[in-house]
Amino acid sequence: MPDSVGELGEFGLIGAVTARLPQGQDVLLGPGDDSAVVAAPDGRVVVTTDLLVENRHFRRDWSDPSDVGHKAAAQNLSDIEAMGARPTSLVVGLGLPADLPSAWAVALSAGLAEEAALVGASVVGGDVVRSPLVVVSVTALGTLSGATPVTRSGARPGDVVAVCGRLGWAEAGFQVLSRGFRTPRLVVEAHRRPQVPYGAGAEAAALGATAMCDVSDGLLGDLGHVAAASSVAIDVDPATLDVAAPLREVASALGADPLTWVLTGGDDNALVATFPAGAELPDRWTVIGAVSAGSGVTVDGAEYAAPGGHDHFAGP
Amino acid sequence: MPDSVGELGEFGLIGAVTARLPQGQDVLLGPGDDSAVVAAPDGRVVVTTDLLVENRHFRRDWSDPSDVGHKAAAQNLSDIEAMGARPTSLVVGLGLPADLPSAWAVALSAGLAEEAALVGASVVGGDVVRSPLVVVSVTALGTLSGATPVTRSGARPGDVVAVCGRLGWAEAGFQVLSRGFRTPRLVVEAHRRPQVPYGAGAEAAALGATAMCDVSDGLLGDLGHVAAASSVAIDVDPATLDVAAPLREVASALGADPLTWVLTGGDDNALVATFPAGAELPDRWTVIGAVSAGSGVTVDGAEYAAPGGHDHFAGP
Repeated sequence: MPDSVGELGEFGLIGAVTARLPQGQDVLLGPGDDSAVVAAPDGRVVVTTDLLVENRHFRRDWSDPSDVGHKAAAQNLSDIEAMGARPTSLVVGLGLPADLPSAWAVALSAGLAEEAALVGASVVGGDVVRSPLVVVSVTALGTLSGATPVTRSGARPGDVVAVCGRLGWAEAGFQVLSRGFRTPRLVVEAHRRPQVPYGAGAEAAALGATAMCDVSDGLLGDLGHVAAASSVAIDVDPATLDVAAPLREVASALGADPLTWVLTGGDDNALVATFPAGAELPDRWTVIGAVSAGSGVTVDGAEYAAPGGHDHFAGP
Repeated sequence: MPDSVGELGEFGLIGAVTARLPQGQDVLLGPGDDSAVVAAPDGRVVVTTDLLVENRHFRRDWSDPSDVGHKAAAQNLSDIEAMGARPTSLVVGLGLPADLPSAWAVALSAGLAEEAALVGASVVGGDVVRSPLVVVSVTALGTLSGATPVTRSGARPGDVVAVCGRLGWAEAGFQVLSRGFRTPRLVVEAHRRPQVPYGAGAEAAALGATAMCDVSDGLLGDLGHVAAASSVAIDVDPATLDVAAPLREVASALGADPLTWVLTGGDDNALVATFPAGAELPDRWTVIGAVSAGSGVTVDGAEYAAPGGHDHFAGP
């Protein structure tokens, strides 16, 4: 294989990439034509897209190409889960510098396919173009299997708020990497590859979830989206939140507050949902708050002082 | 509205953009949640994606933002058409510099929605991120309405080759713009906004097309894809090709050969298809060649001398 994507060329690279893309049961026509065809068994398709730009959403010196692929896929698959749906497929656009090692691009694509395979989804198509910096666009499709989509707007006063998945881990990893460290491995890995609680979205829908959201902007920020869309108030009980030992250790070493990471850190791709009071939730869901009449999000009854959520245009 | 996308912020920009996105009949859940939900009435969805990078696929000094939106949508909608399907929806990822005027981003989104509306499709979701240069990723979805997808691999010896839509116009516009001119307007406009023959894809499928392809890499290049996928030879009769008067005039002024533009120019998003001999084709389809046993693409029986197609990693 030629060393750079420029030497390999568009069609050579597409050939090298698609040769490694296994196609699952939902794929009716895979890569290689003008479009792909994917099953949508209940007559509806769930669709979401994200764009990742080098040095903004990942750094090549912090993450290996497989990590970048896993992360790009995970954050889209998580948005499918958050509707109560099952992901079926991804299409991918890659913008690549001509001098990028072609092995880097192939490893990124393999990471995308590996993450998709965790939930039985396939990479069914894509586009490869030249770009001065690495750009990865991912669109995920999914099926609701006959269920009603769980939106952000259905939370009702009296509901409980529950979370599934990790919170604050990716932020702890980001803080460590930002200071030039590469350890502790657990939190650095969490930044590189979110651990999406696959299957929890459809599970929540089956359990009667009234609203749901992927935690990508931070717990308080994303609960703010639910509160606004549902015209309700949400209070979080900080005593119920899992501030894991690795987070406490890293925060202690950096002189930071680990609870802030749990409440406002993004990019772990946990799921947060509201359920009718009394819903019996499996162990991986933890009740962390309650819905009431009103507006806004509070922590233990009060506005939270640290900045909530993050704006992708703010900051460096 | 604040002047720049950085001042407006991610959520402000999403609000400004989505307020102007009409939602058509295939949209079950539009923008504003983790994912959208779109109808897939026959239990299948057709999907394709393209990535456009500033200074590679468009220039802000050559095209206005509405043009860029129209073009980004058109080239994806055309890939849905090329399967014999009807486009239903688009999702869009926008990478935008913080100092970009927010009106530019809003106009781009409006251009995307306007192009989609030409074929009854809607922009149902997206992502907005900061990027050092403008990046537009578009994913289009479509429905086959019960038809069999028309792939690149079904051409058979004895079939005729027919084209619908313009060829060489966008290349003529590119040649003019590359030399610093802004006229003739007709070819410059063709570069800025391809005129996709909407509806011709499903029409070709209904007429029994055996293979089909969107002409985005140039007629000979894209016919090469069909010939390779179908394991056949294709010969093009140059006497049948429409070398329009504006192309002849521009080529004459530039000392170029307009037939080369028709045979190898990309980005007009015409459709080329193969049909059984004797198929009765509507006026907008022109028979331009024939399929035989063998391999490769010829023009009047001989290999064409000018470079065929273009590689997105080659050139400047």
